[in-house]
Order: sequence, then C-alpha cells, then structure tokens
Amino acid sequence: MSVSAEPTSAAPGRAQRPRTAVATVCLSGTLEDKLAAAAAAGFDGVEIFEPDFVASPSSAAEIRRRCADLGLTIDLYQPFRDFDSTDPERRAANLRRAERKFDVMEALGTDLILVCSSVAPDAVDDDGQIAEQLHALADRAAARGLRISYEALAWGRHVNTYERSWEVVRRADHPALGLCVDSFHILSRGSDPAGIRDIPGEKLFFLQLADAPHMDMNVLQWSRHHRLFPGQGAFDLPAFLGHVWAAGYTGPLSLEVFNDVFRQADPRRAGVDALRSLLALAEAVRDPDLGHLPPGVEVGGPALPATPRLHGFAFAEVAVDDDCEPAIARTLAALGFTHSGSHRTKPVQLWSQGQARVLLNAQPSAHGAAVAAVGVEVDDPTAAAERATALLAPVLPRTRGAAEADLSAVAAPDGTSVFFCRTGAEDGWLTDFPADDGAAPGSGSIGSIDHVAMTQPFDNFDEAALFYRSLLGLATQHASEVAAPFGLVRNRTVADPERTLRLGLSVSVLRRGEWAPGVAEPQHVAFACADVLGAARAAREAGAPLLPIPDNYYDDLDARLAPPEEQLAEMRELNVLLDRDEHGEFLHFYTEVLGGRVFFEVVQRIGGYEGYGEVNAPIRMAAHRRLRLR
Amino acid sequence: MSVSAEPTSAAPGRAQRPRTAVATVCLSGTLEDKLAAAAAAGFDGVEIFEPDFVASPSSAAEIRRRCADLGLTIDLYQPFRDFDSTDPERRAANLRRAERKFDVMEALGTDLILVCSSVAPDAVDDDGQIAEQLHALADRAAARGLRISYEALAWGRHVNTYERSWEVVRRADHPALGLCVDSFHILSRGSDPAGIRDIPGEKLFFLQLADAPHMDMNVLQWSRHHRLFPGQGAFDLPAFLGHVWAAGYTGPLSLEVFNDVFRQADPRRAGVDALRSLLALAEAVRDPDLGHLPPGVEVGGPALPATPRLHGFAFAEVAVDDDCEPAIARTLAALGFTHSGSHRTKPVQLWSQGQARVLLNAQPSAHGAAVAAVGVEVDDPTAAAERATALLAPVLPRTRGAAEADLSAVAAPDGTSVFFCRTGAEDGWLTDFPADDGAAPGSGSIGSIDHVAMTQPFDNFDEAALFYRSLLGLATQHASEVAAPFGLVRNRTVADPERTLRLGLSVSVLRRGEWAPGVAEPQHVAFACADVLGAARAAREAGAPLLPIPDNYYDDLDARLAPPEEQLAEMRELNVLLDRDEHGEFLHFYTEVLGGRVFFEVVQRIGGYEGYGEVNAPIRMAAHRRLRLR
Repeated sequence: MSVSAEPTSAAPGRAQRPRTAVATVCLSGTLEDKLAAAAAAGFDGVEIFEPDFVASPSSAAEIRRRCADLGLTIDLYQPFRDFDSTDPERRAANLRRAERKFDVMEALGTDLILVCSSVAPDAVDDDGQIAEQLHALADRAAARGLRISYEALAWGRHVNTYERSWEVVRRADHPALGLCVDSFHILSRGSDPAGIRDIPGEKLFFLQLADAPHMDMNVLQWSRHHRLFPGQGAFDLPAFLGHVWAAGYTGPLSLEVFNDVFRQADPRRAGVDALRSLLALAEAVRDPDLGHLPPGVEVGGPALPATPRLHGFAFAEVAVDDDCEPAIARTLAALGFTHSGSHRTKPVQLWSQGQARVLLNAQPSAHGAAVAAVGVEVDDPTAAAERATALLAPVLPRTRGAAEADLSAVAAPDGTSVFFCRTGAEDGWLTDFPADDGAAPGSGSIGSIDHVAMTQPFDNFDEAALFYRSLLGLATQHASEVAAPFGLVRNRTVADPERTLRLGLSVSVLRRGEWAPGVAEPQHVAFACADVLGAARAAREAGAPLLPIPDNYYDDLDARLAPPEEQLAEMRELNVLLDRDEHGEFLHFYTEVLGGRVFFEVVQRIGGYEGYGEVNAPIRMAAHRRLRLR
Repeated sequence: MSVSAEPTSAAPGRAQRPRTAVATVCLSGTLEDKLAAAAAAGFDGVEIFEPDFVASPSSAAEIRRRCADLGLTIDLYQPFRDFDSTDPERRAANLRRAERKFDVMEALGTDLILVCSSVAPDAVDDDGQIAEQLHALADRAAARGLRISYEALAWGRHVNTYERSWEVVRRADHPALGLCVDSFHILSRGSDPAGIRDIPGEKLFFLQLADAPHMDMNVLQWSRHHRLFPGQGAFDLPAFLGHVWAAGYTGPLSLEVFNDVFRQADPRRAGVDALRSLLALAEAVRDPDLGHLPPGVEVGGPALPATPRLHGFAFAEVAVDDDCEPAIARTLAALGFTHSGSHRTKPVQLWSQGQARVLLNAQPSAHGAAVAAVGVEVDDPTAAAERATALLAPVLPRTRGAAEADLSAVAAPDGTSVFFCRTGAEDGWLTDFPADDGAAPGSGSIGSIDHVAMTQPFDNFDEAALFYRSLLGLATQHASEVAAPFGLVRNRTVADPERTLRLGLSVSVLRRGEWAPGVAEPQHVAFACADVLGAARAAREAGAPLLPIPDNYYDDLDARLAPPEEQLAEMRELNVLLDRDEHGEFLHFYTEVLGGRVFFEVVQRIGGYEGYGEVNAPIRMAAHRRLRLR
C-alpha cells in the first residue's frame, strides 16, 4: 500500500487538478495566520481580502515575498466597493481611491481587482453610464498593467444579477474589464446559471465559489454569515462549475466563504476542509458534455480513487477505563451480546450478536468511555484509504487500532478513527480475535449496527458532514434542530443510498455557560433489531440499565398517535419509545449513560421508516440528566 | 437606608404590581429546574409548556403540589396545535387528543389551555367553520370547568392575525372560548395593536409578552430563536400593553420567549432577568389616558423610585495584582494622570485628571487587571440604589467597595460593581481619599471618562442591556457586529440622553475552540480629551505603551477619507485613528493591553460624532493580538 502519512503529498498532482485559491476572509486570524494556513493546506493561491491587509503590519511588498516563499500566488485583491456614482465629486473621489488601491496591487504583485456593484444611494442605474465609468477605470488599470473583475452583488442597488453585470461589461468592451461570477450571488437569487455558458470564456476573469444552506432570510445577512464550502450546503455547485468551465473559464477555483464559525475556528483545520471541498467539487463535475475543460484538468478522472462500495459497519470500538468497563460489558451481555473473542496481544474484547460487533478497548489513559472508532465495511480497503488520503484525511499510524491486521484508518474531524475493513477476507481483522473457548456470537434479535451517533466539536460540524460525504459517498439524509432541555441541538444524519451505513452528527448550537455542567456531549451506538419489545423484555430481565421513560410520555403518545392499547401498555412497561413517519414506524429504547458519555440504543424499523426518533430525543436527554443528578 | 441584600424581598409589593407569569419554555433545564427558578425570581405563576411536562417524571398531580409549595399558580397549559380540520377523521382524533389534554389540565389544576391557529394542510379556511369547531371544543371544555384561549400564530395557515382570530372567537360566541394575544405574533407582522382596545376585556383570556429585534427573516424562525424579554428588543411593548389594559384585560402579564441563548443559560439568572423586564415594562406604561388598569395595579407609581438623574462617571475602578500595578500606574501617569490620593485604610490609589478618575485597587487575589467597578454620578444615591433593588439587582455588601463612604453598589450581570455616588457631597466618597502631599489632579487635556467598555459573558449580553436600561434609564445608542480577526463580535452601546454616561457592551458571538487562546475578553476605559493629537504626543514622550497601528491603515484612510495630508502624517506618527459620521469626526488612540485584559483609549469627539470608532476595532484587535505573540 502506498498511502503516505502526509495528507497533502498524496493529493492529486497539480497538473491533474484545477488551480485552487481561497479568499483570506474564509479563514480566522491575522493575515499572516491565514496565508500560512492556506499554504499548509495545499492551496495554489489566495484572494487578499482588503480588511485583512489593512490590519496587517506587513507592507504589500512583504506580503508579496511571504506569499512567494509559501508558494502562493495572489490571484485577486478584493473588494472595491461602490465605484460608479451619479455624483461627479464622489466619482472623482472614487477614482482617486482606486488609484491608491492600484498602488497596493502593484506592490503586492497582483493584477486583478474585484469591483462589486454599488449598493450606495448614488449608484448609477443606467447600464451605458456604468459601462462608461468602468471603461474609464479599466483605462487607468490597463495603463498600470492591471485588470478589473466586475461582480454583481445579489443585493446591489441596481446591478444585482450576473446577466446585468455581463451586459455592463459587454457594453464597456474593454480588454482590461471582465466579469467575476460568484456562485452565492447567482444561486441565492434563484438565477439560472446556464446562461453563463454563453459568456465568452476570456471575459470570465474570476470565479468565486461558495455553497450555502437554504435560508429564508435577508440575502445580505445570509451571505455574510452562513456561506459554506462547496458540498456543505444546498446549492448545486457541480452544475454551476460545469457551466463556468463550459464557457471556457481557465482561472482558479477560488473560495469566498463568509461563515461565522469558520471565522473563529482554527484556520489550519478550516484550510484543509476548504481544499477538500474543491477536490470533491471538481470530481463531481462528471458530465462529459460540459466540455471546454481547462488544459490539464481531468475531472472525475483517475486523480481520486472511486467512492468505495459500502457494506455497513464492521464494528464500533468503545474505549473504556477500568472503572466503566465492567458495566459496559454487563450491559452488552444483557442486550444479548456475547464476548466472542479477545485480541491476540491487546486488551481488546470483541462482543458480537449477528453482524453487530462492539470492541471494548481497555485503555489505562481513558477517562470513562468514548466511541473511539468505527469500522466501515468496504470492498477494497486499500482503495478507500487512498481516496481518503487524496481527500486530505489525516492517516493514522497502524499501531493505533484495536486490531493488528492490515487496517488502514483515518481520523475524522472529531478525532474518531475510521477504519476501512473487509471482515470476510482471509486476512481480515477478525483473525486478530480468536474465539474464546465455546464462545459464539450472541443469538438475540439484534442483527447489526443501525447507526452510530456522535456529538461533534462546535467548530467542525460542517467539516464532518463534508468529510463523510466526500470520503465515503454518504449524503445528508436528515437535518433537524431539537429544542433540548439544555439548549438547542443541531442534528444531521448522513447515510449511503442503500442505508447500510448511517452516522448521526450533532452539535450543541450555542456555547453553554456554567449551567448544566453534568451534561456531557454524548455518543451512542444504536443496534438494529427485529423485535424491540422482545429485546427490551429480555434486556430488562437480564438486568440491563434501561433508561426509564416518564409516564407522561406515554399519555402524550396516546393522545398524539394512539397506538393499540396493548402495545402502549407494553411500551410503557418496557420503556420503549415510538415514532412514525409517512413510511412506517420506529420503536426504540435506550440504556443509561455509561462511563460518563456513551449509551446504547436498540431500534426496530417497521416499514420504510427513515428517521431516528429525533422527536423523542428531548425525552431521552431529560431522563439522562435526571440520572446524573441521582 | 433600608435597602436589603436580598434582591426580591425589596421588590414592590404584590398588591402594587400586576400579576406576572412566565412560560416554562423561556427557561433552561428540566421542568423541575424551571419551576424552581420561576419561584425564586418572584413570579406569581407559570405557563406549563407541554414538552416540558411530557419529559418530566412527575405526574400532573405532583407538579400541581410542587407549584403550590413554591407559591406558583399554573395560569396556562400550552400549546394545543392544529385543532380545526377539514378532515372528519382527523377532527375526531383531535377531539380525542383534546380530551386527553383536559385530563392533564384537571390533574394540574389549571383551567386554561392555549389553542393556536392551525398550520396543517387540513386547516379550515372558513371563519364560520372554525368557529363551529372551536365551539364544540369549548362545549367539551366547559363541561369539565375548563376554558380555551385561541391564538393566531403569525404563520398560521389561514388564521394569522389577531383580527381574524377575534372574528372566529366572536362568531363562536361561547363563554368558555376567549382570545390569547401574543405581542410577537401581532407586532412581528406589523399589525396595528390599537384594535385590541375594541375587544371586550372579558374575552381577552390571556396575554403573552415577548420582544424581539427587527430581523428580515422567516417569521417562524425569528419567533422560535430570537424572541427577547420586553425591553431587550425593538418592539413598542409599553404601547402594546397599554392597549391590552385599555381593553380591560385583568389577567397576568406572561412571558413567552423562545430564545436560543436563554434556552441554555442558567434559569435562575434568566428568571430574574425575565421578571425585571416585566417590572420595567409595567413602569413604562405611563400614559394616564390608557385607563382601565386592573384593580390594584398602579403603573409608574411609587412602587419604583424614579430613574436617577445621571452626571457621568464618578470613577472607574481597576483591580490589579502586584505584577501589573506598576505598568498601569506608569501608563496613567504617562497619559497625564496624577496619583492624587490614597485610601485611608485600603490599598487603593486615586488617579485623576480633570473629572476623570481611576481607582487602582491592589488585590492580592487578582490575576492581572480587570475593570472591577464603575462609579455613577447621581443626584440621590440612596434612591438610585432603592430603584436598583426594586428591579432585582443584587445588592453588594458595603465592605466590598474601594471606598468606605456610604456607597451603595449593585452587581451588574458581568459581575462589575456599579456604585451610586455623589462625589461633591460633604460626606462623598472622595473624602476617603485624602490628597497626598502636593498632589493635584493632572492638568492634561483629558477631562472625563468618555465611556467604559466591557466584554460580557455570552449568556448575559441581552440581560446586561436591560439591566442598565431599567436601572439607569440608559437607552441603546448603537448596535453593530464587527468581523474581528478571531470571529464576529457583537457590540451594543447604551447611554443616557445627555450622553454623560456611555457604556460599551460586547460579546464574542460564537464559542471559540482552541484557536486564538491568547485573545482574552478585553475591557477598556476611554478618556475624553480636547486635543487627542497633543495628548498622544505627550503620552508618547512620557513613555506610554501606545498601540502601534499599521501603515496600511493610514494608506487606506487616505484612500477612503482623504484627511488633510499634514493631519494624516501626524496621525500616522502618533498611532491615532480616525472615524467620521454624518455629524462629525472621532480621533482616538489606544494603549497596549495591560495586566492581560485591560487597555485605555483616549478619544476626541469633533462636532456631533455619535459613535465609538467601531470601524477601527478590527485594526485594534489585530494589533493587540500581535503584541501578545511578541
């Protein structure tokens, strides 16, 4: 296997991938922090966002040298606002202002500036006049070897569509004046980007890419706070990029993402997330009809190994300390699992039931319990690991895993290890776990792992979804916000189309203060089961610490969903919860939290139920909280 | 003086104030947590929010007893959603569901339920038919001694104005059916609440109060996440409440505030904030023409001592440890302050210049420096303290202050002490600071404290604004969000109408992770000065640690504002910054951060400039950050 431990070195060769850039506004910190982060992630260039430059103690010449040292080109200086004007005095002041900025650009060694459409009260509403004013500006730029890239802001006073900005540029007809197209400004307005194909490629001076979730709010606020990297939001960016390439654009793919979370997150992490988004985006532009790709760019080609075919979870690994290990082992036993094997050399127990496998990894350094790893069943673990590496996932040293077989693993954004496994292979990881005498997998009604759910670090929630999406081909299945007893919790579940692998990602939306200190960020493993009522009864009889559910819940369930009386009585007796969607029903029960952070769930999907019983999550959270106060 | 240290005991007597209630959804935690917090704050009653009850292990009878023990009435059970239906089967199911909820109400001992207008696809669009269906429901309720309060949600499918919900209730004409009016649903749509005066008071069964900032977004999202307590947002709630009282409403003032921050904040703090908002609101309804006040309610009467007349800052107190005290003292000296007195018995130095006074309070327990207190100059300190106490501000023990004179102080939400002073009085606090031999106030160009700015705990940002607004009569002057180098910072400045007392409150909008750990939450004292360039020059010559401002800033200033060349050169030399608004100019400079958290600013307001140079804040933050990395 040729996977390197250095994420970027195994990324597709630069000749094979489009040039990439990132606007410094995407990243947190000082300009110096941002440049270092962009270079470390592997970007080819940057857009210098003016406020970052203005706050820097480094002169333009010093920044130029810094970028050269870091191997970064400066592809754009931005933004220049409110240029055109109906007021002659202001127009003169704006030309003066532009010349000052041209000074900066010359010293930076960049030839392209972004001029965005005016939002000012004195903005010109006549295309011909705007064209005339921009022509004059382009003349001055050209005299200094510089070029102007004109962009329609979605909230521009008069020019707020790419069609109109192109009309202005077309009329101005100046070789130093071209267009900047920004996916957010175009897609947020619901404009059809197909018209970009009709713009001559040489007039497309720059491309800014940003994704965003659908939000019903003021477009400026949406843009300034909620942009995301491609693949993290709801926009169809592969189609957008396809149109831009089809028009003949040959410049860099450049990210301009204003996002409140990224603005305050570690820029070294965010930079990697950002570049990963562009690699995945370029791969997603697969339509051969799009044509006109820039020279040297192979899209969806061999640069990235194909998305792996998934076959569910090979295992979930729970790291445990000595204090909690017995309770977790007892609970698994009570849920019908058997301790079916032990690792040859490491203090790792294999517990299994059907195809559901849990590794208990005793670690003296652990504090309580934590879901430390998931094993993902794939056809070709090597190819899957190569893809992950190409997508900048940090490769983990082999010695870290619970198993010793040739298992490749990468670190997910929350630190969880993701192992690529082929359990059935001759030399598969299970061979490291010889069966104890007489041990066989448990024969209860649990058959597999339904999903694994993990609370994410606040700064990495969107990164995590893109990570799983790009590496494994998982797509967002559900997104919700739950008004939990101790504050809003945001959930996102990602799954493969066949629903063999489901992951729940959640995050506490706001920072919490001193209140509710007993509520940790929980993780859980949910097992799929063919008879949850039977499983609950057996588990109760075997002494599993089932989570008590209040009577009030069942009274409300009766009022809302009116399940059959007998079923309701049994659910009430056994602490089993119910949800319904248009496809079917979901019956489930929980255990108490074990080792401070981990609990188990057993679920039964009836019909085509697609959810995760999120409606019951606040009940669960309040019940867990109560036990902590006990 | 009769001020008690127990905040609630000195609150206005219940006979003198309207009954108050709070919906459990306003507060964080389990139902049990919420009830305890509401009672501790001093509310008379609660609305039980159904999801809180459903998640509780306590039966309705137990909750009833708990509330009785806590002295709380249960004024409302809520919400009942999507009652009316065009589908006979669903209608039958909804009636069954209602009967189950009537069971709960009976056990809780509350007679009023909130039914909100339907958002469901099967909602009825005919007023007569809705009236008919609600009449049937009211019949069933009446048979059990219960009543229905019908509310138009702002996003109701068909019924989404109070006018239409009243038309439905009027047509139904049932004694057990009345209206619930909610200020958010009415004011968020821009409806004119004056029409409420025409509704018979006895048909107004319930009043829910919520404020909100103006936001241009989906009204449901606005409502679910961004409601605020009265006085914290932009709605004219005194006028609203006036209309409701004028109509003859005699029920409680009840808060229903869905807010992401309050949902996760300590409910004991939020409860006090909530009740304070109602006390201040009731006081603000002063118009004698409104009439029809409920019996026993005196509005704006003697229950609250009048808002104090303010005369600026008496002092700012900085707590210092031994390590940073010399540097801060040297800096004050270099800024032209004189060490003009020392406390009789405590290790507190008085530094002064004109009317600007800084107390340096040496505290062995301090870590670095912190703005520990502000002294507020008022005509009548005793009355001001009584008002603060009536508004539930925690009274501080006398021994805590730097001075020993009869100084009353309360704790602001961020823990800062607010002293009420009359510096010129015979027995004023200054008498505790006999002048050192030969010491006189500094005679530089600094004349007073312009403002004091403090980063607030995230959970208490809105609480702080209401605190200062209600206690001191300060109003929000500016609100802004600054894209700072390490994330978004929200600012709000509050000031009295005469601008003698200006406070800056800011908050880091998002939780920050491990990134940028060197950036503390800064506080600063800004001094007003008649000649900031002269002051900067003198300070530099005296060795003050002025904050270096990048050259790039001055180049940009030239491009943007084009100040006279000579002035620009002097500003550049002296690290003085500039802002302009439509009224005038603002020149200012900063010191380095001293003692880890505190810095000073010297400002000059020219013309009627009203701001705080926020545009320059990111420059300052990046410069401070750089020094930390030095």
